[in-house]
Amino acid sequence: MLEQLKEDVFKANLALPKHGLVTFTWGNVSGIDREKGLVVIKPSGVEYFEMRSRDMVVVDLDGNVVEGDLKPSSDTATHLVLYKQFPEIGGIVHTHSTVATSWAQAGKPIPAFGTTQADYFYGEIPCTRPMTEEEIKGEYELETGNVIVETFKSLNIDPNQVPGALVYSHAPFAWGKDANDAVHNAVVLEQVATMAWKTLTINPETPPMDQTLLDRHYLRKHGANAYYGQK
Amino acid sequence: MLEQLKEDVFKANLALPKHGLVTFTWGNVSGIDREKGLVVIKPSGVEYFEMRSRDMVVVDLDGNVVEGDLKPSSDTATHLVLYKQFPEIGGIVHTHSTVATSWAQAGKPIPAFGTTQADYFYGEIPCTRPMTEEEIKGEYELETGNVIVETFKSLNIDPNQVPGALVYSHAPFAWGKDANDAVHNAVVLEQVATMAWKTLTINPETPPMDQTLLDRHYLRKHGANAYYGQK
Amino acid sequence: MLEQLKEDVFKANLALPKHGLVTFTWGNVSGIDREKGLVVIKPSGVEYFEMRSRDMVVVDLDGNVVEGDLKPSSDTATHLVLYKQFPEIGGIVHTHSTVATSWAQAGKPIPAFGTTQADYFYGEIPCTRPMTEEEIKGEYELETGNVIVETFKSLNIDPNQVPGALVYSHAPFAWGKDANDAVHNAVVLEQVATMAWKTLTINPETPPMDQTLLDRHYLRKHGANAYYGQK
Amino acid sequence: MLEQLKEDVFKANLALPKHGLVTFTWGNVSGIDREKGLVVIKPSGVEYFEMRSRDMVVVDLDGNVVEGDLKPSSDTATHLVLYKQFPEIGGIVHTHSTVATSWAQAGKPIPAFGTTQADYFYGEIPCTRPMTEEEIKGEYELETGNVIVETFKSLNIDPNQVPGALVYSHAPFAWGKDANDAVHNAVVLEQVATMAWKTLTINPETPPMDQTLLDRHYLRKHGANAYYGQK
Repeated sequence: MLEQLKEDVFKANLALPKHGLVTFTWGNVSGIDREKGLVVIKPSGVEYFEMRSRDMVVVDLDGNVVEGDLKPSSDTATHLVLYKQFPEIGGIVHTHSTVATSWAQAGKPIPAFGTTQADYFYGEIPCTRPMTEEEIKGEYELETGNVIVETFKSLNIDPNQVPGALVYSHAPFAWGKDANDAVHNAVVLEQVATMAWKTLTINPETPPMDQTLLDRHYLRKHGANAYYGQK
Repeated sequence: MLEQLKEDVFKANLALPKHGLVTFTWGNVSGIDREKGLVVIKPSGVEYFEMRSRDMVVVDLDGNVVEGDLKPSSDTATHLVLYKQFPEIGGIVHTHSTVATSWAQAGKPIPAFGTTQADYFYGEIPCTRPMTEEEIKGEYELETGNVIVETFKSLNIDPNQVPGALVYSHAPFAWGKDANDAVHNAVVLEQVATMAWKTLTINPETPPMDQTLLDRHYLRKHGANAYYGQK
Repeated sequence: MLEQLKEDVFKANLALPKHGLVTFTWGNVSGIDREKGLVVIKPSGVEYFEMRSRDMVVVDLDGNVVEGDLKPSSDTATHLVLYKQFPEIGGIVHTHSTVATSWAQAGKPIPAFGTTQADYFYGEIPCTRPMTEEEIKGEYELETGNVIVETFKSLNIDPNQVPGALVYSHAPFAWGKDANDAVHNAVVLEQVATMAWKTLTINPETPPMDQTLLDRHYLRKHGANAYYGQK
Repeated sequence: MLEQLKEDVFKANLALPKHGLVTFTWGNVSGIDREKGLVVIKPSGVEYFEMRSRDMVVVDLDGNVVEGDLKPSSDTATHLVLYKQFPEIGGIVHTHSTVATSWAQAGKPIPAFGTTQADYFYGEIPCTRPMTEEEIKGEYELETGNVIVETFKSLNIDPNQVPGALVYSHAPFAWGKDANDAVHNAVVLEQVATMAWKTLTINPETPPMDQTLLDRHYLRKHGANAYYGQK
């Protein structure tokens, strides 16, 4: 079942080491079939070079394994919360990519310093609050999803316009319209994290970019009036 | 038409990912045929690995597509302003290369700290002023070209001697006598941006290099008395 | 003798340049056969690309060469102290990997800033005290082992839970249940050293991560209640 | 003539891009035949991928071209001063490797922070004083050699024990017993420059390493009592 989605999710997972976003088995990609309400996700702790398309695990939105011989990623519960709360997204990526993770460890959002970020993220990339002892000791992976959703709601950010977040003391999550698009956004997130880090060391007083410029670049690529690319 | 120029511009575009200057489709190279008044430029948003020589788009200096099935780069208007205002240049490159972009985001020119820069850029690499709301909301890409030209005029810099600039909150542009030479200068720009960043973190008080040394190195490679290389 | 262990240690040594952890011949891996009380280690100063499985040197726990035509690594005495004092470890790696070495030179432990570290190291990665003149002039490599062991004892750290250390003004050592696992931990050590360095430059006031979160991540992968991976 | 030396110098030049030390044609290696008093050096401004062994240029110690169709490196005069003043060296490398060049631009010597440096450089790697206007406008490349020699004399450093230097506002030179050894030292110089830069950003107050430790490591690899490697 879901052979095409499994193939897409498998390839999206392989794209992580290709883009230098993961070390060993750190990282996972999933994709959802919204009609069937089923999610395809990487198995837990399997090496990328050994993994096969048919090793992808199918789970329902309650986390029950519907198909697959392997255990799904230990972060599956986080993915499921995001699919349920962000109804328009079709793929999710979790990595420990170096610089985005450094921002998460520093507990700081990535400011929108320039048009590279504005082309993909409509503003700063938020960092969640520290999780409580109760959340960490409880259903930790599910609560990780909840604290991401809470961050977007409390800051009134549209997850379709800011397709990624930093989890405090942890690492980034990114998403997109499908698994491949989510990987694309994870690459951009690492790239803008790198630029923002260097920007701050060149000029610690750098202000966020002008709002008009942010609007222009984001809307040049997204929405009804986009004019970038061949469409 | 312009088959040789298309081939040159195509190869110069492919050189961008080879030199690590671009992620995905971020970046474009153009070249001009000054006699015919025609510019060859990368199509908008096409992946480098899919692109073919015949996908290059030919436009006139008013931006009309003269040949090609694809839309030209969304930055075409910027290129055209530079070709019109800097009459001796033959190729232009725009990238979001990581460190040069970080300097642009920091809103700082790249100081001439050493002979690596002096061998190619006769002084600091300027950063434009912030663009006005009117410029951003208006013909944005054309105004981006205008603000580069204004920067060179107001600082009295010769664009043939300083073949590149940083656009505030955005990223670098570089140029040269042809498309290939422009790529060469874009590589150098990223390299000197990297060195200048590290120089400042080693010694935040580093002064610009001695003017006599700047003269010696620049003139060793450029002008009537150059003595570097085999010519 | 010990053909399988030699092959394992040989492959673990070759993994060091593959993971970008060594320049030239800087670095060495060993493995131990606990039953026989024999250690297999890289020969001293041999290039990785020339090395063969049969060049591995077998020494006993007193440092006597039991088999092999080449001299063992000049760091052998350090390895032997660690094998004697840390009875559960099966493999040891020494490298001068760039960022971990920078922390060792700075004389600072690597704080536990996030879950990447917590997944492998149950707390901060300690840095030894400066060695005394007597230690340096005496049996230097043996004393290097002693000062690592002293650090773990004085800070009451379990070497099975924190599989690595920084030697002051020198470089990192890492270990694991076998040679391959030790290399794995050496790669993680360099990665978390990189993240911690960037974290501090983004936010110099970053506190260590929450203890509950450290517990959760470490115990998710280690011990009786681990639930990461396929076991 | 000097076919073996030409082959060695050719291969040493090709090793520069292989080790990531040069961009484009920035960098050159030479070797000397002390008996004949002849130096073999890279031709000026030739691309590495086009260069052949027979393109190497032979010059005498006064800089006269003795054999070769191409012009020798524009830095030849610097090499010749070093060969004349440092009578035991057999090969010289000049690069603009990124981090060593950043230290040269910052005008700072590279402190001896740890054993990686101590294994090859018996102390800090000095940076020359700024050159005078007269030196720069005069025989600039020859004066560059002179200011390196002056630095070693005034600081009483033995060039055989510290096989490299930074030229102020310019870039590093390294040398060794032959061309290949000089490249080896140039790689180490870039590596310790990188570590020293990161060390300082982790702990700006890092002191130089202990002298006893410096002695121990340097003498472990050099001189009559060396015990590293297979000899």
